[in-house]
Amino acid sequence: MTEHVAPALDYDSGLLSPVRVGTPVEAVTGDTAWLQAMLDAEAGLARAQARLGTVPAAAADTIGRLARAELLDLAALARAGREAANPVVGLVRALTAVVAAEDPSAAEYVHRGSTSQDVLDTGSMLVARRAIAVILPDLDRTAAALAALAAEHRGTTMAGRTLALHAVPTTFGLKAAGWLELVRTARTRLAELADRLPVELGGAAGTLAGYLEYAEGAGEDYARRLTETYADELGLAVPELPWHALRTPIADLGAACALLTGVLGKIAVDVQVLVRTEVGELAEPAAVGRGRSSAMPHKRNPVLSTLIRSAALQVPVLSAGLAQCLVAEDERSAGVWHAEWLLLRECLRLAGGAAHLAAELAEGLEVRPERMRANLDLTGGQLVSERIAAVLAPLLGRGTAQELLNRAATLAAAEQRPLGAVLAEQPELHGKLTDAALAELLDPANYTGAAVPFTDRAVRG
Amino acid sequence: MTEHVAPALDYDSGLLSPVRVGTPVEAVTGDTAWLQAMLDAEAGLARAQARLGTVPAAAADTIGRLARAELLDLAALARAGREAANPVVGLVRALTAVVAAEDPSAAEYVHRGSTSQDVLDTGSMLVARRAIAVILPDLDRTAAALAALAAEHRGTTMAGRTLALHAVPTTFGLKAAGWLELVRTARTRLAELADRLPVELGGAAGTLAGYLEYAEGAGEDYARRLTETYADELGLAVPELPWHALRTPIADLGAACALLTGVLGKIAVDVQVLVRTEVGELAEPAAVGRGRSSAMPHKRNPVLSTLIRSAALQVPVLSAGLAQCLVAEDERSAGVWHAEWLLLRECLRLAGGAAHLAAELAEGLEVRPERMRANLDLTGGQLVSERIAAVLAPLLGRGTAQELLNRAATLAAAEQRPLGAVLAEQPELHGKLTDAALAELLDPANYTGAAVPFTDRAVRG
Amino acid sequence: MTEHVAPALDYDSGLLSPVRVGTPVEAVTGDTAWLQAMLDAEAGLARAQARLGTVPAAAADTIGRLARAELLDLAALARAGREAANPVVGLVRALTAVVAAEDPSAAEYVHRGSTSQDVLDTGSMLVARRAIAVILPDLDRTAAALAALAAEHRGTTMAGRTLALHAVPTTFGLKAAGWLELVRTARTRLAELADRLPVELGGAAGTLAGYLEYAEGAGEDYARRLTETYADELGLAVPELPWHALRTPIADLGAACALLTGVLGKIAVDVQVLVRTEVGELAEPAAVGRGRSSAMPHKRNPVLSTLIRSAALQVPVLSAGLAQCLVAEDERSAGVWHAEWLLLRECLRLAGGAAHLAAELAEGLEVRPERMRANLDLTGGQLVSERIAAVLAPLLGRGTAQELLNRAATLAAAEQRPLGAVLAEQPELHGKLTDAALAELLDPANYTGAAVPFTDRAVRG
Amino acid sequence: MTEHVAPALDYDSGLLSPVRVGTPVEAVTGDTAWLQAMLDAEAGLARAQARLGTVPAAAADTIGRLARAELLDLAALARAGREAANPVVGLVRALTAVVAAEDPSAAEYVHRGSTSQDVLDTGSMLVARRAIAVILPDLDRTAAALAALAAEHRGTTMAGRTLALHAVPTTFGLKAAGWLELVRTARTRLAELADRLPVELGGAAGTLAGYLEYAEGAGEDYARRLTETYADELGLAVPELPWHALRTPIADLGAACALLTGVLGKIAVDVQVLVRTEVGELAEPAAVGRGRSSAMPHKRNPVLSTLIRSAALQVPVLSAGLAQCLVAEDERSAGVWHAEWLLLRECLRLAGGAAHLAAELAEGLEVRPERMRANLDLTGGQLVSERIAAVLAPLLGRGTAQELLNRAATLAAAEQRPLGAVLAEQPELHGKLTDAALAELLDPANYTGAAVPFTDRAVRG
Repeated sequence: MTEHVAPALDYDSGLLSPVRVGTPVEAVTGDTAWLQAMLDAEAGLARAQARLGTVPAAAADTIGRLARAELLDLAALARAGREAANPVVGLVRALTAVVAAEDPSAAEYVHRGSTSQDVLDTGSMLVARRAIAVILPDLDRTAAALAALAAEHRGTTMAGRTLALHAVPTTFGLKAAGWLELVRTARTRLAELADRLPVELGGAAGTLAGYLEYAEGAGEDYARRLTETYADELGLAVPELPWHALRTPIADLGAACALLTGVLGKIAVDVQVLVRTEVGELAEPAAVGRGRSSAMPHKRNPVLSTLIRSAALQVPVLSAGLAQCLVAEDERSAGVWHAEWLLLRECLRLAGGAAHLAAELAEGLEVRPERMRANLDLTGGQLVSERIAAVLAPLLGRGTAQELLNRAATLAAAEQRPLGAVLAEQPELHGKLTDAALAELLDPANYTGAAVPFTDRAVRG
Repeated sequence: MTEHVAPALDYDSGLLSPVRVGTPVEAVTGDTAWLQAMLDAEAGLARAQARLGTVPAAAADTIGRLARAELLDLAALARAGREAANPVVGLVRALTAVVAAEDPSAAEYVHRGSTSQDVLDTGSMLVARRAIAVILPDLDRTAAALAALAAEHRGTTMAGRTLALHAVPTTFGLKAAGWLELVRTARTRLAELADRLPVELGGAAGTLAGYLEYAEGAGEDYARRLTETYADELGLAVPELPWHALRTPIADLGAACALLTGVLGKIAVDVQVLVRTEVGELAEPAAVGRGRSSAMPHKRNPVLSTLIRSAALQVPVLSAGLAQCLVAEDERSAGVWHAEWLLLRECLRLAGGAAHLAAELAEGLEVRPERMRANLDLTGGQLVSERIAAVLAPLLGRGTAQELLNRAATLAAAEQRPLGAVLAEQPELHGKLTDAALAELLDPANYTGAAVPFTDRAVRG
Repeated sequence: MTEHVAPALDYDSGLLSPVRVGTPVEAVTGDTAWLQAMLDAEAGLARAQARLGTVPAAAADTIGRLARAELLDLAALARAGREAANPVVGLVRALTAVVAAEDPSAAEYVHRGSTSQDVLDTGSMLVARRAIAVILPDLDRTAAALAALAAEHRGTTMAGRTLALHAVPTTFGLKAAGWLELVRTARTRLAELADRLPVELGGAAGTLAGYLEYAEGAGEDYARRLTETYADELGLAVPELPWHALRTPIADLGAACALLTGVLGKIAVDVQVLVRTEVGELAEPAAVGRGRSSAMPHKRNPVLSTLIRSAALQVPVLSAGLAQCLVAEDERSAGVWHAEWLLLRECLRLAGGAAHLAAELAEGLEVRPERMRANLDLTGGQLVSERIAAVLAPLLGRGTAQELLNRAATLAAAEQRPLGAVLAEQPELHGKLTDAALAELLDPANYTGAAVPFTDRAVRG
Repeated sequence: MTEHVAPALDYDSGLLSPVRVGTPVEAVTGDTAWLQAMLDAEAGLARAQARLGTVPAAAADTIGRLARAELLDLAALARAGREAANPVVGLVRALTAVVAAEDPSAAEYVHRGSTSQDVLDTGSMLVARRAIAVILPDLDRTAAALAALAAEHRGTTMAGRTLALHAVPTTFGLKAAGWLELVRTARTRLAELADRLPVELGGAAGTLAGYLEYAEGAGEDYARRLTETYADELGLAVPELPWHALRTPIADLGAACALLTGVLGKIAVDVQVLVRTEVGELAEPAAVGRGRSSAMPHKRNPVLSTLIRSAALQVPVLSAGLAQCLVAEDERSAGVWHAEWLLLRECLRLAGGAAHLAAELAEGLEVRPERMRANLDLTGGQLVSERIAAVLAPLLGRGTAQELLNRAATLAAAEQRPLGAVLAEQPELHGKLTDAALAELLDPANYTGAAVPFTDRAVRG
């Protein structure tokens, strides 16, 4: 065979990650966005130093104005990153050159007193905050749509399923209320976390000695003031301590993303059960071209839940990788820090992509109460056998009641007859249950417990 | 060879998990403890129903009195668990028999309206709360010891290490303060989580229909009242909704354990770097028999940090397994729920074992300032080259200064001479730096930045 | 509430891991079995040294005779393991005491020249080999049953499902053949691995210096001969080098277990789809008491697939933990080695438990061709739309054919009519497809491609 | 603050993954390379059909000639992938258009009878094979360099370290031999796996019905012949069965990558221990600009081992994700398949990047025997205490010998005196050990056991 040679330089554009391609989170987590966030960190640092009088204001302005990703060669920076084991060394060199070309004296103040990790970590926090900022609206849309579904279907009875089988009735309202509750929890976590994301400012080994050296006479509390001003410039939180080797913020982001994709993944697998050809109680929103198979025109593939589920399968392991990076030796680890970047980015991206799809899924989900109703009858009344057992127990004694019911259930299943018909024939029940009472007992809609008030409560929030 | 046949029934007693063997968490997370917690759930349910008038008080008392693990056959229950895919079915049968033997009428009220998952999940929450209750004191001990170390060594200069090499000076106080900060964060998370652990009460499919059926005429809010009373009985929180398939509490526990072991693992690997034969700046607490090798009497193996680190390697992946269990289909998953139990138990156990060892490690850690001091000199003054660069820059211009310093550093390394001696010979510096100024510059203790105020701040908490 | 205090010493008997409780693998992987395996290693070492003349034969005999788990206090050894960070130090002390009580001179030869890791690692390999030895027969049973299912149902047409929806027809034979292929692959891997499991013999740091010191004059190749003789005694393989810090055998075991549970998990989720109340094409084997819900007598829960799936969710993350343990620093890591033990044991146990259940599942699986047949009609013929497209393309041109088919499919779905009826009305097809031809086209049994020959081939193996 | 808006479309160029940026594996695993591989699959399918006479040769030629990534819009295809949940639907549409523009009749034969998964899976196998093809030479370079190191340093004594402390002597030759053994094993696995990577050919649900439909009259064994011819065209293996839902090849690739990065990560952490400032026994290869810190000119950061270790931390969890994807329901999973792509790509990339760096590391590693020698003395002779114990045992009895040695070791450590000096003072040893014998005993170079022959054996291979 003849093989075509791939080009030497190859970019990723999301071909293998459709869950996030083209979604809002993609634009704020790509290489250019990450580069810009690191440049924002450099600019914010210079501005903070200027506010405290240790860098000339004009220099900080120049640095801020020129700290633009489009002025640098992203691919070259990426490659240079291999020599230093991080992309910041090259970034500083390149930014310094850009600034020096306009104002050599300003170039003296680029990255002053700083270290690669201050820039990369702060940049990562900016990216995370921006990613969460685009994720939250999608979660709000999702929650609003789920609340509407729960409210609309507060009384829509459907089969509750456990261990793959019909168990007892529930309502679609309660199911949607459960999804809503999950989404709200994940949303709250992310939002709280976004407010806690800290700047990183430590210098070479977390003491800020370099910053202080360049700020002679600035006073004992300069390190703290610089951190606070830096945080203020960037809209991030002030950390308790420099966190070069105290990686809670990274592990927290991983855990929050895993929670979010887990929650959305739960919705996705529920949807997939209910869209199955045999079940048909739900359908994903119809959209031109989506989920269509040219060879199989009858299919409307549940692509939204499919992609959400694919994210839910990936993020927990990625997040585990981040949790392991807590175990980082020394003032900066030789490898553990470096293992975080890709994992963090993919966590954010997959979570954001899944959230965007979830909003679309929730807003357009087609509910088919008639199929729910039809499926309720599939077991010929056995769906409420738990209730019948409870009702018969005081009439016959618990043991006798259980035995009778088991016998009737087995017979009904064997003969494929309704349980009610078999029960009506049982001599033990004569005179104890009227036909009307039996019919009432056997109606699944009469055995949904607290589904309605629980749903109402969840919808109220 | 002749192989000895292992006995048919084999118990685990922690042989392969020394990190937790014999620690406080072990006693509250073993099979007996878990069984007792499930029995506590059954008893609490009966009491709650009694308080609401739907179970006779005497029956609840009897059930509560007999819901004792020692009255049941643990191994038989474990085996029976395979038939039902969970251990509760057998537990209910066995408990009912025990109660019936004393009072047949009370036996009618065992597990009334309930479902296996209500009992197992509530039991798990009780176990988790009890585990956290024994973990928190160990974390308090650890934090107190770390605070004392940080305070004592607020001014103890040592080499800051990045990418395995000496970078710039720091203090042992700041290192201990960082550990302290991490432990505090993990402790706060666990404590907050303990207060949020919810009872599970949902019945067969999360609607509480069974409970309601047995409480005819109890009123519309009975489901909520029963949940609240049940929670009150067991000292657990009231969930928003039944969470059979909304597994946030489990994923949260996994994440909190991963954070805790990650944090303790960070301390452990730092300790291991510093106890290395060549470094010798720390030693683990001496204890009779601990860490001794009979064949190599000179070794005092860092067994505490070794075991802590072993936990830190295991928990993130176990926790990832729990995060994946968020993706649980239907009202009860056929397998996802069942995958949680072992993983959760080991997360709790390993975290608790690591916490117990961490307290011992922190309380007995030997700090050797003289070795820290000696190691500061290993680079012949290069440890403060960042500072020299900052000082020379205004004197010579940034570029010239950097060039001079690089030259001097290379020469000093090649000739294994102190950097100060080489610098003193450089003609560019004549008249610009006195010998005294150079000596002051080269003293690592003068270049610890904000280490002391940061440490003081962290110790104040 | 009153809480019952759990006993101080608590054993695990599998309460939280029903997938393996009571299965053959449990007996060979428990603490007693592991202890015995380590004792077997000690005995094998003494015998090997005796064969090479460096230990008296009588001493080796005595050691071998007394190296019995039942003579030692397992719980005490487990606890002692915390002091040494491994259980072998205590084991050697205890075994030496047992031997010395009978023959003090023989006690001199216990663990002679050895190190903890030699004993624990070799013990682990013995356990792994024994575990695989009990797993393989279960896989053979599984494979035989799957082959029989595939052969019996080589022509049983059923819906092929993709992305949760009916796609095109397939056969149950082909599905079972796929399962068979997977099981065979996993079996082959495990069997090959079992033959490669090596003894560990390295002494304190992998040079065997201790063994050599005690064998003065034994010749240059003594180290190699001792390794070979030791391996021969224990029925294990001879490693290329001591592998204290070369952990391939452990990572390989994890990967093989993950493959096995993954493969069985695939079968389990397929079964779960097909046992769903709405699908009903399969049922798990009926067994007295199994999978029954007392409250819901109609349910026959798929407990076998449920438990298998629970294992498949746990083992990949456990195995990832083992893969990470390849990154073990020095001649013996301070923590990485120690992280392997629990993870390895649970991998073996869960894999073995799942295999045992899989054999039972495969041997008793109930296939319901009539439900398969009925479900084939659910889409009203759309299941073969791919075929119709292929047939119409040459008749009408690809584009026109596709358009016509899409139109017909949409109409059929909207009106809930059979696709064939709608197609028969299309004027473009008049004269091009007879009714008989259309009927033949629409029969799913006529569109199963190479399912039958592929199945036959797989069954032949 | 002012934030710069990131561009809407953002490509990744490896900024966050320096371990692989610019390495050979990058060029064969990027989006363009993956797209080309899928196009190669389409072309190979057409050629195979042409060889069997079911597609015109001219059409196959045209398709093959135009199946070029540079003729398609990668970014547009990536985005289109979101609608179909995979990128193949759009690829087929685009390729068909390109072909139709040149020859409409040839366009009829694009993707004939096929399905997205056949193209994507086969493309993935091509990518994997190409990735392995560029990885193997790097592993060969690594192995050759390690063999040379082992040979050169077969007699270079150094401290063997266990649990972070000096234990007994070993040689650098044996350490390098261990690394060599690991690399060889990982290389063998990858190479064997490369030869087993199968084409995927199954059609919509694994029956090849679509292919057969278009090949009327082609004979019963057409499905098998088409698979074989397709495999021949692409240089891939012939699978036993279509593997749409039998994902062993994917899981195997993940496991092989995890083994490889684990093995290289082991080398990396060993190097990092030995380059530490206090240890100084190794240095990474010097290269202009690499690992240099502008602020700290004395540092030569171990960037190669740092990046390799970062890969070793990521791949096991990514690989766990792939192992979990074995559990794929139905004939094609709704989400599990989709979760594989990104994980697989990153496994290959990180493994390939690490291999490339490892070759450079091994080839340029600086070994410092003088530092090894110096460090051997750090424990004042205690490094050989195991040997002394063995020698004294027959002289004094095991117990007395042990006691004496413990006493001497403790005294030597307390007084910081050489163990030999303390031993020489012990009255029990007078007349039993000459000064010369004691000196010989205490020389670490005399206690390296079988290190030399083991090394020689490993070097011979």
